Amino acid sequence: MSARVFVGQHRVEAIATDDRGLAYGDGLFETLRAHRGRAPWWEAHWARLERGAQRLRLPLPDRDFVRAQADAALQGVDAGVLKLIVTRGGAGRGYAPAETAEPAWILSAHPLPPGLRDGLTLRWCDTRLSIQPALAGIKHCNRLEQVLARAEWNDPAASGREADEGLMLDTEGDVVCATSANLFALVGGRWATPRIDRCGVAGVCRAWILADLGADESRLSRMQLESAEAVFLCNAVRGILPVARLGERAWAPHPQVSALRGRLAAAAPMFATHD
Amino acid sequence: MSARVFVGQHRVEAIATDDRGLAYGDGLFETLRAHRGRAPWWEAHWARLERGAQRLRLPLPDRDFVRAQADAALQGVDAGVLKLIVTRGGAGRGYAPAETAEPAWILSAHPLPPGLRDGLTLRWCDTRLSIQPALAGIKHCNRLEQVLARAEWNDPAASGREADEGLMLDTEGDVVCATSANLFALVGGRWATPRIDRCGVAGVCRAWILADLGADESRLSRMQLESAEAVFLCNAVRGILPVARLGERAWAPHPQVSALRGRLAAAAPMFATHD
Repeated sequence: MSARVFVGQHRVEAIATDDRGLAYGDGLFETLRAHRGRAPWWEAHWARLERGAQRLRLPLPDRDFVRAQADAALQGVDAGVLKLIVTRGGAGRGYAPAETAEPAWILSAHPLPPGLRDGLTLRWCDTRLSIQPALAGIKHCNRLEQVLARAEWNDPAASGREADEGLMLDTEGDVVCATSANLFALVGGRWATPRIDRCGVAGVCRAWILADLGADESRLSRMQLESAEAVFLCNAVRGILPVARLGERAWAPHPQVSALRGRLAAAAPMFATHD
Repeated sequence: MSARVFVGQHRVEAIATDDRGLAYGDGLFETLRAHRGRAPWWEAHWARLERGAQRLRLPLPDRDFVRAQADAALQGVDAGVLKLIVTRGGAGRGYAPAETAEPAWILSAHPLPPGLRDGLTLRWCDTRLSIQPALAGIKHCNRLEQVLARAEWNDPAASGREADEGLMLDTEGDVVCATSANLFALVGGRWATPRIDRCGVAGVCRAWILADLGADESRLSRMQLESAEAVFLCNAVRGILPVARLGERAWAPHPQVSALRGRLAAAAPMFATHD
């Protein structure tokens, strides 16, 4: 991993010890797929970052400057992941945001994560997502719920056998997402994805698929999901991931998912699979 | 502010760019009152840190080593605040906690915050606290709700006139705490403080007062609070803060609160007020 740290438009050695990202998770992040020296979905990620910044009233660094630095960080990267964290910067102690602090931000390039089998095995996580409309949809840095959920696999006391991803319910029992992916299900012949107005993240890949499929955003119960005709996960790093198994439930590959993957690969060649 | 950064037992220059505290708020913190070169409530703060670490399965640095560093940081500090942040350290990208990462931690000494008038003016915050039993009670670093609540004062569009602190309800409408303090209310002749099993923080000063008053931990409605005979806030930096006003409601100084303050000052002279 190589990382560069900035405050406003100034490159700095390191994040300040009183950075609010560190103290309170007071920041936002984006994780972008890199392909042939570029981040093809940059615009959509930046747009989501802007929506998050507006919600948190968090000043962003200059868009063109960040873009130029991102391009520089991706030089020579054929396939990988670019991560951008933006925090409210360093500003002493206490919750009150300083109006004057410049945002701190980190750009880092990472290798692609290890491939997953085609046809994921999922588990249900015990950790629930809390209902918080003020933070729903945006990709903020308060992610302990996801950390706890993802840690359930490493726990020998937990019920699950090996799984590729875990699904999360909110505290009212509706299905929301996987720990680091969104999800779509074919229910009664129509594609649906959970609403993200109370928790969850407005994924960039999710938005592409929503538009392509003309899918519904709806509340989805655990039972509806388990009885769906097909299920897949998606995120902006891995694209579309068909699901083969969830507990006792198994799904055969579905032609609509294969067709969707083909359309995504045509629109965004970084997601072309070679199988 | 002076700050020292460590990874395990090694002093380092700065927090790593891939630190999980920064990425996900994957950490815990303590804010201790310093008095005459010591942190008199160190043991209680460390015990809460241990409870948080157990909940998050986050490895802590060596207790004696941290204590020695804290003592060093407080040399010559007559009155101030010591802040300790412990994160799960640096471990690449992704929610799965690495089993091997050593914790990163920051010790920083700060001046005492500016004094508040004796007899606080409070406001109601619009930002609610979400219901999340998995994180309730511990002092973790996912604090965007508090940041948003505290930012309401700076917003000229918000309703409130000037206030010293803001009270927060949970998403089900029960009173929980102020943005950076707990609260007690005298209701029907008995002292009560909100339960912290669904959100909120198990404050060190709150625990002292709970024991001293033999108070109840209960669900407290907004109406119950507004009709209470007396209300005060508390935290481990400021001690006990009597409340004089909340919206239209005003309270006269209450002898039981004065007596409690006297007992706290006797037990912990750092909280002696000179008025």
